[in-house]
Amino acid sequence: MPHNSLYRTFETELRVRPDDIDMFQHVHNSKYLDYVLAARYDQMEHCYGMSMETFMEQGYGWVVKAVEINFKRALTLGEYFTVRTAIETINERGCRVIFSIISKLTEKISADGWFDFVMIDIKTNKGIRIPESIMDHYLI
Amino acid sequence: MPHNSLYRTFETELRVRPDDIDMFQHVHNSKYLDYVLAARYDQMEHCYGMSMETFMEQGYGWVVKAVEINFKRALTLGEYFTVRTAIETINERGCRVIFSIISKLTEKISADGWFDFVMIDIKTNKGIRIPESIMDHYLI
Amino acid sequence: MPHNSLYRTFETELRVRPDDIDMFQHVHNSKYLDYVLAARYDQMEHCYGMSMETFMEQGYGWVVKAVEINFKRALTLGEYFTVRTAIETINERGCRVIFSIISKLTEKISADGWFDFVMIDIKTNKGIRIPESIMDHYLI
Amino acid sequence: MPHNSLYRTFETELRVRPDDIDMFQHVHNSKYLDYVLAARYDQMEHCYGMSMETFMEQGYGWVVKAVEINFKRALTLGEYFTVRTAIETINERGCRVIFSIISKLTEKISADGWFDFVMIDIKTNKGIRIPESIMDHYLI
Repeated sequence: MPHNSLYRTFETELRVRPDDIDMFQHVHNSKYLDYVLAARYDQMEHCYGMSMETFMEQGYGWVVKAVEINFKRALTLGEYFTVRTAIETINERGCRVIFSIISKLTEKISADGWFDFVMIDIKTNKGIRIPESIMDHYLI
Repeated sequence: MPHNSLYRTFETELRVRPDDIDMFQHVHNSKYLDYVLAARYDQMEHCYGMSMETFMEQGYGWVVKAVEINFKRALTLGEYFTVRTAIETINERGCRVIFSIISKLTEKISADGWFDFVMIDIKTNKGIRIPESIMDHYLI
Repeated sequence: MPHNSLYRTFETELRVRPDDIDMFQHVHNSKYLDYVLAARYDQMEHCYGMSMETFMEQGYGWVVKAVEINFKRALTLGEYFTVRTAIETINERGCRVIFSIISKLTEKISADGWFDFVMIDIKTNKGIRIPESIMDHYLI
Repeated sequence: MPHNSLYRTFETELRVRPDDIDMFQHVHNSKYLDYVLAARYDQMEHCYGMSMETFMEQGYGWVVKAVEINFKRALTLGEYFTVRTAIETINERGCRVIFSIISKLTEKISADGWFDFVMIDIKTNKGIRIPESIMDHYLI
């Protein structure tokens, strides 16, 4: 997590569910994306004060445009972990959110990377420019 | 939840993840089974004092033999809910766990039903008789 | 599968995906529900000639009201299997679909049971009576 | 897909399952990783002649070290699609597999990117050097 981000870093604590475990007794690789998403939704609500539900009621959605993820140390059954995220950049075309997933037990990074999000109009499912008011909202 | 169960009822609080939501904007039906399993694993560890990991280290696993589930009121994005479970019957061939999933917001039942579990030897993946010591362990 | 059903039995062939496998190296129990649903959607389109998409465009959805499933022999990585379904009963309040999941390799039943479906209005997400025209549609 | 890869490109056809669809009526973003994995397992078996099961019987596993994925056009309910993959580079430390997911209906790219895989010893779950014999196996 770069310490020089202009934007604040937020944390959400989650726990591995049994259905997240794969044949190698580890959390299945694609579930880490779901963890980041769960953390981000939680943070929209509790940290930014605008939940995904509120967004959707206003006709907006955030969808994922691209992801890079590095798997470092696999999480295992029942583990508690923290998902740290911060906006790295945001402009009218989208925002990049950097993340790291940290095991509570070992305090080591399990996975890190970034998500690029774009806003959509949920009626048309087409991408839209992020309104100034929304961008301001994330400048915390 | 029948009030006349000989066995204690345990509760685990969980939260809907975004990846649990389906095209109808509700928790997808098969995820409720995952919620019961997550609660049950949590309760093995915290309520019965013998985690699934301990079980597996001893060469045992619990697998699901049959399920009946009634969907009453769908859970939605971000909802907190409680999974209540209790052993209804247990003998050397297996145990029946009854459950109800209750929305924290409405305090109404979202789903209920039962799971029949059997024990397996995780080396052979074959069913085995539940040892007396294990049965005693659940008589709390 | 009872041979005396008034309604026709349909089959869909599917294959286990790696992400369906759980820590016991078997298909995870809740995925079997997803398999039945996938087969049913396929059969709505190819056997009944009215896809879920068409249903949804007309403002309707089918949702699952209750499920009973018996797990007999676990499917494993990469296995091909057949999902057989038939309507057992249908009336204006809903329909019961019986199913069996059969391994292509062993020709043995992996799981069987039933799903109770009800129709909803997807605008309100409330249950509705099944129109006569829809019921007739399934009398094949 | 770069046309100058030294290694052959393989294709697997798959279909969207209803449980892959998320609240935006699209395939959920993390499921695309599962599709690539499913294709890759299929190709190990049918194109490279060494299935994941054979690998695992020999005590080996392939695990994902890093992924980059670009989401271009969302797949929707019931869509058929092709997953094209090719090894871009392989050495004793791992291999990079590039992929593209193409809608059968529109023939357009739905998502593309790469996976970095490493080999593990499934007894220790630790990374190992890829044996020469395995590398040769993929030089097709």
